[in-house]
Amino acid sequence: MPRTTPTCCAPRRGKTRAKQRPIVRATMLDLPFDLPEFVPGSVWLAGAGPGDPGLLTLLALHGLRGADVVIHDALVDPRILALIPAATAVESMGKRGGEAASNKQSDITARLIELARAGKRVLRLKGGDPFVFGRGPEEALALMAAGIAFRVVPGITAGIGGLAYAGIPVTAKETNSAVAFVTGHGPDGDLPDAFDWDALARGAPVLVFYMGLKHLDRLTARLMAAGRRGDEAAALVCNAATERQTVLETTLAEAAGAVERAGLKPPALFVVGPVVELRRQLDWWAP
Amino acid sequence: MPRTTPTCCAPRRGKTRAKQRPIVRATMLDLPFDLPEFVPGSVWLAGAGPGDPGLLTLLALHGLRGADVVIHDALVDPRILALIPAATAVESMGKRGGEAASNKQSDITARLIELARAGKRVLRLKGGDPFVFGRGPEEALALMAAGIAFRVVPGITAGIGGLAYAGIPVTAKETNSAVAFVTGHGPDGDLPDAFDWDALARGAPVLVFYMGLKHLDRLTARLMAAGRRGDEAAALVCNAATERQTVLETTLAEAAGAVERAGLKPPALFVVGPVVELRRQLDWWAP
Repeated sequence: MPRTTPTCCAPRRGKTRAKQRPIVRATMLDLPFDLPEFVPGSVWLAGAGPGDPGLLTLLALHGLRGADVVIHDALVDPRILALIPAATAVESMGKRGGEAASNKQSDITARLIELARAGKRVLRLKGGDPFVFGRGPEEALALMAAGIAFRVVPGITAGIGGLAYAGIPVTAKETNSAVAFVTGHGPDGDLPDAFDWDALARGAPVLVFYMGLKHLDRLTARLMAAGRRGDEAAALVCNAATERQTVLETTLAEAAGAVERAGLKPPALFVVGPVVELRRQLDWWAP
Repeated sequence: MPRTTPTCCAPRRGKTRAKQRPIVRATMLDLPFDLPEFVPGSVWLAGAGPGDPGLLTLLALHGLRGADVVIHDALVDPRILALIPAATAVESMGKRGGEAASNKQSDITARLIELARAGKRVLRLKGGDPFVFGRGPEEALALMAAGIAFRVVPGITAGIGGLAYAGIPVTAKETNSAVAFVTGHGPDGDLPDAFDWDALARGAPVLVFYMGLKHLDRLTARLMAAGRRGDEAAALVCNAATERQTVLETTLAEAAGAVERAGLKPPALFVVGPVVELRRQLDWWAP
């Protein structure tokens, strides 16, 4: 049965919440405030963060424990999936650029709607943040169009939290007042063309590329053609904030060759700019 | 006594961790994995997220419950401060741009070092993420120079998580493959000058400004001078993801005047770009 009005997320219902039984005790978090109720027939679009299960939010944990079904993508750390109660249904439905085994986005969206219409509490769990270079907005728009209630549970995006685990802050007072996040492949799997690469290269002192490994040679050539120095500090961070994290420090000119020699595999972040040099002092974490 | 070697964060000590008593039971989180030990004499630089206490990470909660002293800045939500056990010392040491009552950064750093040297477990709690437009990198560098062990606990940055609560994803497949985050005032409190504003304006389809309220008239004029359309969708989000969240939908040309008329006050995010239009459909949350 299609719903015509979202019923979760309690829009304009804040005043009645105080009368509800606190939800949090059942989750064993023992918090002095309530967390929102996971209403049957609704979907939570939740981010799992960059890897380290300690970077999961309280709200995402609450959702994992309260869901009837968890639909997760391929990049969620197994230790986070281990938080799902044994009785909860779990489905892996990930998209991975270009892979034959990946699910069509339309199938994922249809499944979310189907489960919600069957009255399930559906947790859609994605790596990082659902609204940063993922299909979260598409899924949210589809749910809204179908009249399914949803809420967004932001997660820590790898471009910030994952880089922090590599000792690289995305901004620092002495080096940059701006940072740009860019996806290394567009909707068709190629380097995105819909924006002005030259301006981007000149405009942001620090550039963080998600999934930039595939086209790294062309990507770095483009940045240098736009005037970025070849000897500028750059780093690749693979499996950021997980037990398999590896960091390759390099330069813009040498990055593509170094990746090739090191045989690095996705998922990887590529970061260019003066903040990379801070890693020499701020390399605080070891998996 | 100055320490010469960091002792926290267990660098290269991963193999001994399995033998340690699980730390998590004491925090009542009831998790199937260990969280790191908060070692006496160390500092955790933790992000509190944009406001909603549900967006706190498990690791930050673990730190709040394990700390001897919490040093927090002015933008941390009171419901998060309510998580600090009654026996824990709490000090408010925030910097707020240009305010007479704010603490000098050197005082904050000196206090962190003093407490750590006295053997305390020191949690430095900041709004958002410690490595995004905050003094986190400076504090980390000072701790490293002083030989104090530290770890970074990333938080959800307001520019992503706060905007999500306003129904504005920072990226969407149909609209943008890049997003830039910019601080609206540089180290001297004025608009930062150290980068190419024209290139930035042309390079990133979506621009998110932190603390952009003070100089909004000059900021918007600069973007339009660089070719951004005056009728482009823009929004101000004040107190994002808190019970006081307000969202003002406007255009680039009208933003400064609209803010003036509405009497909006910091903290505010200013976002420009096509993703703002998605709020018409994705405005899912009400405080």
